[in-house]
Parts: sequence; structure tokens; C-alpha cells
Amino acid sequence: MTRKTRTPAAQRNAFYAQSGGVTAVINASACGVIETARKYPRRIGKVYAGRHGIIGALTEDLIDTSRESRETISGLKYTPSGAFGSARFKLKSLEQNRAEYERLIEVFRAHDIGYFFYNGGNDSMDTALKVSQLSESLGYPITCVGVPKTVDNDLPHTDCCPGFGSVAKYIAVSTREAALDVASMARTSTKVFVLEVMGRHAGWIAAAAGLAGRKPGDPPHIILFPEVPFDQAAFLAKVRFSVDHYGYCVVVVSEGAAYPDGRFLAEAGTTDAFGHSQLGGVGPVVANMVREAHGYKYHWAVADYLQRAARHIASRTDVEQAYACGKAAVELAVKGVNAVMPTIVRKSSRPYRWVIGHVPLAEVANREKKIPREYLSADGFGISPACRRYLEPLIAGEAYPPFRDGLPDYVRIKGAAVRRRLKTGFKI
Amino acid sequence: MTRKTRTPAAQRNAFYAQSGGVTAVINASACGVIETARKYPRRIGKVYAGRHGIIGALTEDLIDTSRESRETISGLKYTPSGAFGSARFKLKSLEQNRAEYERLIEVFRAHDIGYFFYNGGNDSMDTALKVSQLSESLGYPITCVGVPKTVDNDLPHTDCCPGFGSVAKYIAVSTREAALDVASMARTSTKVFVLEVMGRHAGWIAAAAGLAGRKPGDPPHIILFPEVPFDQAAFLAKVRFSVDHYGYCVVVVSEGAAYPDGRFLAEAGTTDAFGHSQLGGVGPVVANMVREAHGYKYHWAVADYLQRAARHIASRTDVEQAYACGKAAVELAVKGVNAVMPTIVRKSSRPYRWVIGHVPLAEVANREKKIPREYLSADGFGISPACRRYLEPLIAGEAYPPFRDGLPDYVRIKGAAVRRRLKTGFKI
Repeated sequence: MTRKTRTPAAQRNAFYAQSGGVTAVINASACGVIETARKYPRRIGKVYAGRHGIIGALTEDLIDTSRESRETISGLKYTPSGAFGSARFKLKSLEQNRAEYERLIEVFRAHDIGYFFYNGGNDSMDTALKVSQLSESLGYPITCVGVPKTVDNDLPHTDCCPGFGSVAKYIAVSTREAALDVASMARTSTKVFVLEVMGRHAGWIAAAAGLAGRKPGDPPHIILFPEVPFDQAAFLAKVRFSVDHYGYCVVVVSEGAAYPDGRFLAEAGTTDAFGHSQLGGVGPVVANMVREAHGYKYHWAVADYLQRAARHIASRTDVEQAYACGKAAVELAVKGVNAVMPTIVRKSSRPYRWVIGHVPLAEVANREKKIPREYLSADGFGISPACRRYLEPLIAGEAYPPFRDGLPDYVRIKGAAVRRRLKTGFKI
Repeated sequence: MTRKTRTPAAQRNAFYAQSGGVTAVINASACGVIETARKYPRRIGKVYAGRHGIIGALTEDLIDTSRESRETISGLKYTPSGAFGSARFKLKSLEQNRAEYERLIEVFRAHDIGYFFYNGGNDSMDTALKVSQLSESLGYPITCVGVPKTVDNDLPHTDCCPGFGSVAKYIAVSTREAALDVASMARTSTKVFVLEVMGRHAGWIAAAAGLAGRKPGDPPHIILFPEVPFDQAAFLAKVRFSVDHYGYCVVVVSEGAAYPDGRFLAEAGTTDAFGHSQLGGVGPVVANMVREAHGYKYHWAVADYLQRAARHIASRTDVEQAYACGKAAVELAVKGVNAVMPTIVRKSSRPYRWVIGHVPLAEVANREKKIPREYLSADGFGISPACRRYLEPLIAGEAYPPFRDGLPDYVRIKGAAVRRRLKTGFKI
């Protein structure tokens, strides 16, 4: 794409990076950022993406997104994972490692980067905030806007978080399907099925499994949340009740489920033949607990990455919100709004209506939103009608990717590197 | 539905039962049986389904499918699991328990059942054959036609087996998605991802994961088949090679993967805190093996029932073949063809063309079809082009169920019981 207008003085480049665990729709946010930036050629020159997130900035390994075709950028909307590479790399505090922040500014300055879009969770919002503050104090101001992303749905100040709706839909759908399977076999085979889901600190993903049932007695019969201290006796009694009354029991357990003293159930778990721990997840631990107590035949599944990568069954609502957050980030930035994160603001649940708002990064950084008590059922093993009302719109709608030869035809970027301008390297 | 024609003498009722592990499309076969039977009212009266499969016949617990609406029956085409209930219940040999077979005939006679459609795998074909033989010798001839079903794809004489294409598609899609996730994170996080899939004796499901990659070096980098004795040194070397060359390694392991001496890898596995074994599956065992040897950060997933229940991502080819087998079973039966099973006959791979054939039950019963050596790559860790050519058409096409409130709107049968006619009960 050749640009015919002359570059105005106000035009600066943008840097975009993906951070932390990826999702089915983080690339939809990338698509929103890049497509929207292309609409403001007088303000934003090129969008450079960090190869492997912030590491790409520190090592001056930048991907020139202007070298990607319109089709590839558009295809990001239906491609899961982090197309530019993500990183689990938390910058230390300014006091502890000021050099890292100064290096970022140095790279940004070398590439005339005036906008920093950071697509991540709580930690990333903290980093974006610090970059904004330091860039100011170093006399090279950068407009820093966060783009929310986390499957855990634990960011505060936003009604929900892009990435969550799709994993929620995957878990709700999978729970409904597996439960039908167990129900049809329970007479002579598996009586108890345990599905382990993600969410180490907040049980939003586990809660989404609750959408699989509509009526009392529908599966899942038991959900184990990180927010509810595990009561083994109550749990085992409820398993027995379910098997006695419905013929089977479907249990969904969050990886963060823990005993009252804070120990994760998973920790209390397994050792391998050599005596090493950490082999099993909480799914097999819980399944085995049931077998010990009741002797029921069981099966367990651990969805692991399958759940957060499952773009094939993404929530259309989630895809739209992910894109909208990326788009809004750019629109805020070109308006000069700095150190904020776009949020999803719910206007009504039935019918579902939402708009994009924004919140200062300082208010988001390093905080977590857990499930409130009123979203849980009285016995703590299920979700309340209020929770269902909250969750249901988030999984609404399908947004199937295109298929080729029976498989989703996800795009892959060329990933052309921007020529390095600095002589100095940086050791991660 | 009231019938205006008089019942001709030749009209007899039919019995249909689901057997063994259920699939995403076994109900599509049920739909094919019931809808087709309704087209032959002068030959077939009512279709009775066994509640929980053959157990429903033994205990005279029959479901009157004529009480189900046209919409419900049609909805079976997109509803996973066994809508009438299935059973893991293998009849003993005639010599060992002739009483069971005689009881079946007794129930069939009491309900004027002249057709027996048994929807299952190898064992079920054996049962159907014996019922046919015994009914003959007891002077109450029943036309017995098997309907093939197994996710394992291990039935002989049919090019493929309904149920397999959909689990194959689920595994190929999930492998592709999870691999993208791992690839985008590997720089700073998980290097090795292990997905455990079903298939205790035959590696067809594991092979399907191979469809996720297109070029050499694409994930999955390693597939562990039951057909290939596990070579730990070669495996670990290949894991290291993959991580060194591609930055990460995706491993798909069949639950039936075994050492040269026949021990399952899963058995060699884990003990829990109390010293009990059998807690973990082969997925965590393999992942841990990699950690022991190389120290890589790993994740593992066990899809378990999710894979065979995943109607939301079923193969359209599979759905069509499942229906066609159910339909053909009835058409064969009304023509008086006895003791056979419809088969899928491949006419060509590219373009894919298939027709329905049939084979005597005696040739199917109790045999298994494993992956031939020429379907494996030279090193035994992947699939060959011939295997890809075989598998690819089986996952072609999507056949999405309808959705409501963000979830697949699967049907549930009323399940009205047929009035009992026998005074005697039967203890399972």
C-alpha cells in the first residue's frame, strides 16, 4: 500500500504487543488496532508489532504490520493464539529495573513510536502505565493505551474481558456435550465425570459451565470454585446425591479450587513413580477422591489449552468486543487520551446492549475481580440466576472461521522484521 | 400419527438399540433407521428402542419411538450421545449364557418384533449375528442388521466407521488450535504440549491429529500410536530436535501407546499420595517423561469424552454416512437381507466418492482393523501421505447444530415406555 499524502509532522508510528496467555480472540483485538490505525494515516504511520510481545520491543525485534496484506490482517479476526507472539514477561518495578523501561523508550524513540498499545491483563496494564509515566519524565512522551485481554475475566472496571466469552462458550458447550454422553452411558458405565477448567484465582470459567444446564438437576451437578473453600464432606455427599437421583454426576472443577487453608487441591495431589509431585491436575485428584469414597466408575478430562485456543466455537459477542476494544484503543490514542484502557460497559442484559468506555490504567493495574457471593448458589456448588443473567450474553452468537479441507483456515503472518536502528542489543 | 391403511400380515415391529461408547453421530444413525422405517409402514410397524441398549430388550424396557415428534426424530441428526441410552453390556457366548439370548427372543416375540437393528461396534455385530441364528433355530426368525458405530474406526470391511470422522475432525481442529497457542507462547513459556486422545487398540484417532499440519515441521511434531512400540530414546530425541528447530514441540499420544513388551505407558504411570495407581492418563505420564529428561516447561490436555461428544464440530461427511448407514440397514432389512452390516465403500479419494455396501455380520464380528504400516511415516512418529489421503475426506464439511442462547440446542426424547407384556422380569 503506497501512501500518496505527505507525512505530516504529527504522524508517529505505533507499537502493539500481545502479552501473557493468549486467547481465541486476542488477534481480533490486533485486527481492530491495525485496521483502525490504517484509517488515521495522518496521525499514525506504521504499526509495529513486538515479536513475542514486549520482548520484541526490548530486543528491537519489531514486525512491520504494513507488510501484511489486508486479507491477512482481516483474517486475524478469526485466528486464535497470538499471531505476533506473546510473552510471559513481567517488567520489574521501576525501582528494581529502570534499565528495562529506559530501553523500551530508547527503542520507541529510535523508531519514532508515539503510541503504545499493550494487549494484556492486569500486569500489562501496570507496565503500560509505567511506560507512559517514564516516557513523560524522559521528555519523549508516548501515548499508552491498554487493550484488555484475559480468559480469566478478572480485570476490574470492565463488565467483562475479551477472551473470556469464547472460553466460556467452549466450556459451556463441552460440558453440555460431555454430560449428554455420560448420561447415556451411566447405567452400565461411567457414573462420575470431572472436567478441569482454567482459572487459578477466579472461577469465572468454571461458572460458565453452569450455563450448560437449564433446570435444577441438569448437569453440571457440581462446580468447584476457587472462591469457595473446598468442603470435602459436602462435596462427596452431593456427588452421591446426584448419582442416586440422576444416575450420574458431572463435576466441573477450577484449577484454582483450594482447601480452606489455601492449599490448592491439585497440590494435595499426585506423585509420580519417582516421588515427584505436580504431575496431575486437579481433575484427576477430584475424580480419585470420588472413587476412594464411593467407588464409582469415573472419567476425567483436562481441557487445558484447548479451551482458550478454541476459535472454532468462539462467542460472536466476544469477537466483536475484542475487535471493538482494539479499535477504541486507537481512537482514544489519536484523540490524545493517555494511560487508559477501553472497557466494556453493559447497558442491559436482556436484550444485551453494551458500549465501549474507558478507565485510567492506574485503576486497573494489578487488581483482580473475583466472583461475588451473590453469583453463587446457596450451597456454593453452582451459579445463581444473577450469574446466569450476567454470563449468558457473553457466549451469545457464533463466529465460525472459514474452513479448508475440513479444518479452520487460520492465517499466518509473514512477520517481516523492521530494520534495526540501534547498535546496542539487550539481553532478556 | 394415525395410520389409515390396515396392518398387513407382513407388518412387524422393529427393535433398535445403541451399544457401547457413544459418538457425536450415533443418533444420526438412529434418525436414519427411524425415518426410513416410517417410509415402509406396510413392512415395519413401530420402531421400539431399547432403553440403555440391549438392557432395554432384556428387561422389556422399550421406548416407543412413534410417540416422538417428527422434529425430535429429525433433531437426532444433530444431537450427540445416545438419545435412547447405550450400554456397555456384552452378551456372553451362547454356550455360557443361552438364557440371555432366549430372553431376547422372548421379548421380541411378545412385541411382534421382526427386525433387530443393533448400532455398535465389533462386539455388537457378534451379538446381532447370534440373535439372528438363535431366532432361526427357535422358530421365530428375526431379520438382524447391524449399524456400524465406533469412534475407534477399527471395524473391518468398511472403509471407515460412523463416529470416527467427527472425533477425527475434533482432534485435528483442536491440535491445530492448541499448537498455534503453544507456538505463540513458547519463547517464554510452555515448550512442550501433550494431547492425549482415545484409541486403546488402534491409533486412528491419533493419526487424525496429523491432519493439523500441512508441511514438514508443522505440528503435531510427534504422534504416539498403539501400533508402534514406544521407543523412549527416539521419542525424547525427537522432542529435543523439535524444540531446538521449531521452538516448541506438540505431542499427540494415543491412550493405547505401549512399550515393546505390551505394557501401556499409562500403566507405568502415576501413584497418588496414598500409593494408588491408575490416577493419571498417558498424557501426564509422557509430559513428565519429557520434563525428567529435558526440563522443558510443559502442559498437557486430556480430551476424554469431550472428543467423542463434540457434535458442535462434527464432520458433515460423518453425519451423512451415519445417517446413510441407518437408512441402508432398514432398506436391507425390508428387502429381507439378513445378518449383514452396511458398510462405507470408497470409490475415490479426490474427489471423495462413496457408496453404501454391506457385508455379512460373520465377517465383521470381533475383528479389529489397525493402522497399516504404510500409513505411518518412516520414523513411526507421524502419518504418511497415503494416510492423509485416506483421512482427509472423512473430516470434510461442517454440520453445525442449531444454537439457542449461545449453546447447541440438542433434542431430548420423551422416551415413552411401551407397555410390558411379559410377566417375567430379568435380572441384569
